[in-house]
Amino acid sequence: MSVDHVLFIMAMAATISFAITGVLAVSERRVDFFSAVVLGVITAVGGGTIRDLILDVPVFWANDLSYIRAAVLASILTFVAQAFFSRPQVFKLILYIDGIGIALFGVAGAVKTAELGFGWPVGPLMLGVITAIGGSLIRDVLSGRKTLLMTDEVYAVPVVIGCLVTLVTLKFYPDLTSEAMIAGTVIAFSLRASAIHWSLRLPSWFTTQPHDK
Amino acid sequence: MSVDHVLFIMAMAATISFAITGVLAVSERRVDFFSAVVLGVITAVGGGTIRDLILDVPVFWANDLSYIRAAVLASILTFVAQAFFSRPQVFKLILYIDGIGIALFGVAGAVKTAELGFGWPVGPLMLGVITAIGGSLIRDVLSGRKTLLMTDEVYAVPVVIGCLVTLVTLKFYPDLTSEAMIAGTVIAFSLRASAIHWSLRLPSWFTTQPHDK
Amino acid sequence: MSVDHVLFIMAMAATISFAITGVLAVSERRVDFFSAVVLGVITAVGGGTIRDLILDVPVFWANDLSYIRAAVLASILTFVAQAFFSRPQVFKLILYIDGIGIALFGVAGAVKTAELGFGWPVGPLMLGVITAIGGSLIRDVLSGRKTLLMTDEVYAVPVVIGCLVTLVTLKFYPDLTSEAMIAGTVIAFSLRASAIHWSLRLPSWFTTQPHDK
Repeated sequence: MSVDHVLFIMAMAATISFAITGVLAVSERRVDFFSAVVLGVITAVGGGTIRDLILDVPVFWANDLSYIRAAVLASILTFVAQAFFSRPQVFKLILYIDGIGIALFGVAGAVKTAELGFGWPVGPLMLGVITAIGGSLIRDVLSGRKTLLMTDEVYAVPVVIGCLVTLVTLKFYPDLTSEAMIAGTVIAFSLRASAIHWSLRLPSWFTTQPHDK
Repeated sequence: MSVDHVLFIMAMAATISFAITGVLAVSERRVDFFSAVVLGVITAVGGGTIRDLILDVPVFWANDLSYIRAAVLASILTFVAQAFFSRPQVFKLILYIDGIGIALFGVAGAVKTAELGFGWPVGPLMLGVITAIGGSLIRDVLSGRKTLLMTDEVYAVPVVIGCLVTLVTLKFYPDLTSEAMIAGTVIAFSLRASAIHWSLRLPSWFTTQPHDK
Repeated sequence: MSVDHVLFIMAMAATISFAITGVLAVSERRVDFFSAVVLGVITAVGGGTIRDLILDVPVFWANDLSYIRAAVLASILTFVAQAFFSRPQVFKLILYIDGIGIALFGVAGAVKTAELGFGWPVGPLMLGVITAIGGSLIRDVLSGRKTLLMTDEVYAVPVVIGCLVTLVTLKFYPDLTSEAMIAGTVIAFSLRASAIHWSLRLPSWFTTQPHDK
């Protein structure tokens, strides 16, 4: 299986999982069908779109509409079956799917950036993280939610670590692209899954202590 | 009259109407002259700018500053004559002007995208909608207003339908660009105007029912 | 000293000052180490990134990572030494540093745009202002703060005036790039510093009077 093939499957799985969690996130509030689909699609392809704009390459969904189609279909399905998805057990499962999504997107974004030789090593790390969480950030801003940057959830940090694992591996073993991506993705997801399972929060020494007025 | 000519007049009329409604939207809050003009201009050219960045073509106002000039002048006029524009009858009129603007911008954006062969047919539809409502979304986010995606107003859906009419017409009659654009614009505006006139809201079956805590 | 050299030093000083004020702005709220660094870096390079995307040139930090490195280091330092930076006298000093930053960034952004011949004279003015305040706007939106466009602070207007001074000078004396930049930067900073020192606010005739409900 070629690297391109692996990249495509990873991106497609991540796209679907992001659209689902995107629609669920905004459906806590009153939101109409059209807005739900728009926000689901933005969650799914927004991060990769920002990455491609910064890389100055064609946006990844322009020449292969399967990403957009998958995001639209997943968003519609989630909107229709929202009652099902809101059940506690299902919601928990969705959190894990979302964890797979950020791991996949982050590592795939970092590798795409690295292959273009863009700003190594800071560029791939930054654009990997943007690929993973950029769509969620846009969705939260447009829907008036607090962005994940302002919560103490262990969400972006696993992506950072997973991308670092992949990039360090690629630096020393440039030929092992698939293996480096799998390692980074597994580690990012494991960390995120641990945070979900044990309800881990970022420790307080990792967080500013606002000066009281 | 050539297609380019039609496109230019449509875009100019939409630009002015957007700047006016942009300034009025934020002048409900305290906002200074500079911010009002900035937000008016962003409302007017923001959507088309995002479209052009995604299409990777030069932004439409760079080589023809008449758009920016029109937006700046309309914003200044609206700021100065705000008391006039805030009258109920005038405000109602403004809502209709805004409706013309989203119809014009959406269809013109969809056609520009289609002519570039970008991601047909999903690309033209998405970028048409972004052209129409993107500037308003940026303005709302920057001014701390609830974005129109989170209201039950019938605002973006008419644009979607108008763009679909234009795109379907173009698919079967590729030579009738002007006619397809006029049809789509008229239909989008008619739907939006009906929503304003009869105070239509999106039906509740079209909207998520948030699960109460 | 060449123009490029002057531009580099100006941009580097502005980058560091922006990262510091970016982290301080969000540390009023609970924010973790990772988010603080992300928001500091966004404050520092966000405005220039939007400018470069609109200009369709490679983003300025891609080929010279010293900007990102400086922003990351300054953000980390500010996060660690936050108690120090929150002291009233230090905070006042930070406001002045920030004033240098917006003056430097605005004028440098306007000159870069003018040298590319992009939309003279409106383009350089707009992109100069975006370079100066774009990063802060993104930071405020992502962290849920009121953006500076919605306050009555004298913040963006000095940048507008400084950019105008530089651009008018360049129009009549195209060879005096360094002098024009220094003049614009000094004037922009002087105006901003006066506003800080005398707690100037935008006058009420400069601000909309919201119609009471």
